[in-house]
Amino acid sequence: MIAGIIGATGYAGAELVRLLAGHPNITALALASVSFEGNRIDYIYPNLLRQVRTPLIKPEAVLEEAHVVFGALPSGVGESYAKQCMEKGIPFIDLSADFRFDDDEATFSAWYGKPFVYPALRARSVYGLPELNREKIKERAASGPVIIGNPGCYPTGASLGAYPALALGLAGTGTIIVDAASGITGGGREPSRSFHYPECADALAPYKIGCHRHTPEISRNFRFMAAGEGHQEAPPLIFTPHLAPMNRGILSTIYIPLHDTWRVQVPRSPEPRPPAQELKDQEALIQARYAIFYRDEPFVRVLPAGSTAATNWVRHSNYCDISVHLDPTGTTLILVTAIDNMVKGAAGQAVQNMNLIFGFDETAGLTAIPGSF
Amino acid sequence: MIAGIIGATGYAGAELVRLLAGHPNITALALASVSFEGNRIDYIYPNLLRQVRTPLIKPEAVLEEAHVVFGALPSGVGESYAKQCMEKGIPFIDLSADFRFDDDEATFSAWYGKPFVYPALRARSVYGLPELNREKIKERAASGPVIIGNPGCYPTGASLGAYPALALGLAGTGTIIVDAASGITGGGREPSRSFHYPECADALAPYKIGCHRHTPEISRNFRFMAAGEGHQEAPPLIFTPHLAPMNRGILSTIYIPLHDTWRVQVPRSPEPRPPAQELKDQEALIQARYAIFYRDEPFVRVLPAGSTAATNWVRHSNYCDISVHLDPTGTTLILVTAIDNMVKGAAGQAVQNMNLIFGFDETAGLTAIPGSF
Amino acid sequence: MIAGIIGATGYAGAELVRLLAGHPNITALALASVSFEGNRIDYIYPNLLRQVRTPLIKPEAVLEEAHVVFGALPSGVGESYAKQCMEKGIPFIDLSADFRFDDDEATFSAWYGKPFVYPALRARSVYGLPELNREKIKERAASGPVIIGNPGCYPTGASLGAYPALALGLAGTGTIIVDAASGITGGGREPSRSFHYPECADALAPYKIGCHRHTPEISRNFRFMAAGEGHQEAPPLIFTPHLAPMNRGILSTIYIPLHDTWRVQVPRSPEPRPPAQELKDQEALIQARYAIFYRDEPFVRVLPAGSTAATNWVRHSNYCDISVHLDPTGTTLILVTAIDNMVKGAAGQAVQNMNLIFGFDETAGLTAIPGSF
Amino acid sequence: MIAGIIGATGYAGAELVRLLAGHPNITALALASVSFEGNRIDYIYPNLLRQVRTPLIKPEAVLEEAHVVFGALPSGVGESYAKQCMEKGIPFIDLSADFRFDDDEATFSAWYGKPFVYPALRARSVYGLPELNREKIKERAASGPVIIGNPGCYPTGASLGAYPALALGLAGTGTIIVDAASGITGGGREPSRSFHYPECADALAPYKIGCHRHTPEISRNFRFMAAGEGHQEAPPLIFTPHLAPMNRGILSTIYIPLHDTWRVQVPRSPEPRPPAQELKDQEALIQARYAIFYRDEPFVRVLPAGSTAATNWVRHSNYCDISVHLDPTGTTLILVTAIDNMVKGAAGQAVQNMNLIFGFDETAGLTAIPGSF
Repeated sequence: MIAGIIGATGYAGAELVRLLAGHPNITALALASVSFEGNRIDYIYPNLLRQVRTPLIKPEAVLEEAHVVFGALPSGVGESYAKQCMEKGIPFIDLSADFRFDDDEATFSAWYGKPFVYPALRARSVYGLPELNREKIKERAASGPVIIGNPGCYPTGASLGAYPALALGLAGTGTIIVDAASGITGGGREPSRSFHYPECADALAPYKIGCHRHTPEISRNFRFMAAGEGHQEAPPLIFTPHLAPMNRGILSTIYIPLHDTWRVQVPRSPEPRPPAQELKDQEALIQARYAIFYRDEPFVRVLPAGSTAATNWVRHSNYCDISVHLDPTGTTLILVTAIDNMVKGAAGQAVQNMNLIFGFDETAGLTAIPGSF
Repeated sequence: MIAGIIGATGYAGAELVRLLAGHPNITALALASVSFEGNRIDYIYPNLLRQVRTPLIKPEAVLEEAHVVFGALPSGVGESYAKQCMEKGIPFIDLSADFRFDDDEATFSAWYGKPFVYPALRARSVYGLPELNREKIKERAASGPVIIGNPGCYPTGASLGAYPALALGLAGTGTIIVDAASGITGGGREPSRSFHYPECADALAPYKIGCHRHTPEISRNFRFMAAGEGHQEAPPLIFTPHLAPMNRGILSTIYIPLHDTWRVQVPRSPEPRPPAQELKDQEALIQARYAIFYRDEPFVRVLPAGSTAATNWVRHSNYCDISVHLDPTGTTLILVTAIDNMVKGAAGQAVQNMNLIFGFDETAGLTAIPGSF
Repeated sequence: MIAGIIGATGYAGAELVRLLAGHPNITALALASVSFEGNRIDYIYPNLLRQVRTPLIKPEAVLEEAHVVFGALPSGVGESYAKQCMEKGIPFIDLSADFRFDDDEATFSAWYGKPFVYPALRARSVYGLPELNREKIKERAASGPVIIGNPGCYPTGASLGAYPALALGLAGTGTIIVDAASGITGGGREPSRSFHYPECADALAPYKIGCHRHTPEISRNFRFMAAGEGHQEAPPLIFTPHLAPMNRGILSTIYIPLHDTWRVQVPRSPEPRPPAQELKDQEALIQARYAIFYRDEPFVRVLPAGSTAATNWVRHSNYCDISVHLDPTGTTLILVTAIDNMVKGAAGQAVQNMNLIFGFDETAGLTAIPGSF
Repeated sequence: MIAGIIGATGYAGAELVRLLAGHPNITALALASVSFEGNRIDYIYPNLLRQVRTPLIKPEAVLEEAHVVFGALPSGVGESYAKQCMEKGIPFIDLSADFRFDDDEATFSAWYGKPFVYPALRARSVYGLPELNREKIKERAASGPVIIGNPGCYPTGASLGAYPALALGLAGTGTIIVDAASGITGGGREPSRSFHYPECADALAPYKIGCHRHTPEISRNFRFMAAGEGHQEAPPLIFTPHLAPMNRGILSTIYIPLHDTWRVQVPRSPEPRPPAQELKDQEALIQARYAIFYRDEPFVRVLPAGSTAATNWVRHSNYCDISVHLDPTGTTLILVTAIDNMVKGAAGQAVQNMNLIFGFDETAGLTAIPGSF
């Protein structure tokens, strides 16, 4: 089977190339790049030398050759390719935000500043977070060519961390805070001041506080995740992204006020005291619920109680690591999630969606063990 | 005037050496180091070559020579030196936690696992956060030899960020969350797995969630800061420290639920919308309150509305930068503070305290401009 | 087939685990660690969770189960395991320096400060640089159980860069300089001041100038490589290692004075001039010789003329990238080689040797594409 | 005295601002920036908040106000400002390459691809390496307004390392190799792929091998330094720059073949042996010559024998650290030099030149102690 990528020379595109070139069900790649058409992918990315010699061709040529097309393009650019794929009868997996909001054009246009190009395409699209939508993805794929709205990197880490708490009724009604930090590849391959080495090395800073475009995607996911438990709507959300001096990874620290029934009564003293055994027991109990909730998920690892998730243990893999903590006041659940922003946060999840669509083993092409350092 | 340092070869000690060697009122240093006694400080720290050739002597010898003594030692070790200073009639500025809790031995021992060694010394000690306790520090120094409990690094960043909100009544009663990240020098000079380069480079992780020893210090500060406004007690506190791959700096992102009178009513929609002008106006208003609150503070820079604090702009300086943000739900104030953990978070603040004690210009020895990169 | 590792929790051991767990011919691992016996490898290295759950057992138990044993131990510790393997009739692949010097005990003991433990074992050992010794490795393996002296990290990068120049007679008799820099994982997993994050982050320094233990190994390789061309001995060698602030990778810049017949006559001017076309032509010619020389090597990539090798393009792979340059005075060949110090410089090369011994495809288990970032 | 900077918002310009704002003889700054005219320097560089509030004005306005003008501009742009300064009778300190080659226009234009704009200006210019040209700088300044050709960053580190060897006759006639690595600020403030964080973090690579523009400047310096000893010309030079993942610093490892009289006879063995005492003695002897040579230089620190220079000990300072080593074959002197590329390699050296011109203490404004980490 031939996989096509439009936008193959951006960071997400290059990571797709790396993953698909090692995928057991993919026999060839068809790669398009506007910036480097006529060149060869391994001349742009020398790590691919000897491994992938594919020439960079026009998008139209990719659409002709491929049995599945990945769009690794800025928002608004890929819809016409999605349309052509639908007409041709092959799936389109879109890594931009264009198809992440189903038919909620109001939310999309409020945050992305433009309307849907072909609104009708949403009849064929589905939000591609497999842990939430696996059956829906398969169903839609079974009924004809499908468009995947592949999730954003921050929403993936935030949603997988909060999902069990929301679905199992651990969460109360208070505001959920997602405090997250991304490695610099999250900014893409185009040079700019923000991602210029001397500006971001050895430094840490938040950015776009309260106005990052991933906010509505996270909020929507939280609402859907909570819905099954009878919540009319999800708790209010605060999302604060940071830029951290590392290449890969997103770490999310998620604060969820507990439902009353899950709180632990902590004796008040003028100053706080170290956590009592009772708190640790409750923490272990919730960790167990998380572990059971994700028991069958191939790419979610709920860490043992007492461990803490960190970006270095998931590097180059499709894993989302989750650790479960209870704050010492007994009122708030703290989840820490770690993903590789370019794999589970982008290209890896896209491959996972392809596997679901075609009925491949869901882990095909995604079995690499994370690096030890 | 001769300044003495006990524990001169640890990271905080070495930073004290650097700052005091350039201090206009200090004519000589007396340096003690158990690990390197008999050696010379510039052989241990080659950056000091040509600049500081002071030999490393016994603590007793330092106590004899010095007119002021800094203790850069682990908790529990420095009290006897503090006692000797009091007997000798000279000030002792302690960078450990021993004197940070006034006479609240219960809190100290609950978190540090040991009792006060000489409880009576607290009659001479004062918590050395100048922005909170400037007058108290001066008063105590005026009445005899004083012991300074120099604040912890995280408590400095967290407290300066929250102070105006607490003192001006912006804060409501909800839980305050301090999500902070430190550079690796915060772990000290002793090698260990956690701070071994390959374990922490290019990676990000929280640690000691809910059980970091700086928790009660932050909480106590919040209580004191809020007290003037009639609050019986401070809001509950959640503090989550992270380790970030950088040498210097602490970034704190602080979430404070607003008092009802300061909230902004945001029209609910199924999904959140980008922040409206009304929110930005309120944000600018609160920023102005912050700017006025800290108007006369030499080391606190409240950034213009729309800016975001970052660790790189305060490197090697005693500044605490603060930026003010309002979350898009209109209910929560978000403060970002950046300090150099080894300067305002340790050695610089200690020098600031010395300046206060001796009536020097408060900025003496602390005027270096932060590096541009 | 079961692969055993003694010293599985050091960095080289952990990298062996990662590679062997994904090797198509290995069905199980047997892992020994003195420090963590009784524990499980994925509790020590959380990246291995869900992937490798092997318990850490005694070396003796590993020797009983395994069909091949890797020694990832300090020099001097592994010989007894090698001996037991020989007695049991299974190969031992040693990542220490113990078997890198054949029967030249004088050189080994001069640099490592101790004698061979069981000198007779050298009758079964062979230096495991496949590009140099492939046939010898196969022959020895065919004739009984073999011991592999797996090459050092620096010697691998230096030797592969110089090999064609030495073997093809491009090198003259002048001193060869190898100026190389290693990532910090080269220092191993044990914490120490040299590899403490704040001491080596954002900094660069040479170390052990003129006295690094890899010097005689490089020199001996050069001699062997040159021998075929009638040189009595190799040119004198200067080797200067540096420590660079990165996790993985060794970059070697190698200066080889050209044989007279290969020099380019450059017109002298008081000051040098930019390289003329003639020099670029000669550079391209030598690049072509290099490319032909390594044509059939699966893990050596000679970059196109005009490119420059860099550590980031080989990360996590067994490749050695080589770029070929001619200095503007026309007298010196400059080779740049890049390897991942933990893969081609240690664990990956060990697996390559295992593949050779057992007649597996030489690239089995080593086909991962290097990361794009 | 008012100091003017044209090009104040580039990295070299910003570093000049930081240094001059703290200079005891400078009372005000006049700053020009084409890109940010009308803005304020502390809005572009927030580290300067509270410290430097200078507005960014037109170059013409700077020329009117200032008593000395620094040009921090690309080559070819600054000559007209130099001309205006000469006409006005004030010194111009140029950080570009325009005035580094005296009247050797042939060399300049061969490497920089353009002619001198106003060749006659060279009658007033002098190459500003104080350790080489101190008296010449002072003389020219005494005779009228002077133009300083401030040295390049690599040439500073290379030249100061080789100077004693060349001047004292330690160097023979063989090729000198300068293998050097720079931090990323060396690439300037303009974003580009080469300096984009994910492309250069955690990686090491040489660049422009044999064709870096600093080659003729280094070569010319070597020739001048050797001249006093009767050498007709300097030894041939090979210069290889690398890019290292750090913000500041240049480390140079310099290989100089020793003059016969300085060589140490080392007994040949098939493989090299660790360095004998005789070598260490000779190394100490040469170190002593170096120490004496630079005895009175305020900014050159010759490290004790046995130490090794490293970039981290000179960060943020105007020091050049030099360590002296002898290679184990006894034929080659190895010098390691470390500078902060933005201070001694650019802005700091420019301030040192200003101090010389005006007869200030040569260290004025440059007394900051390097950071300990």
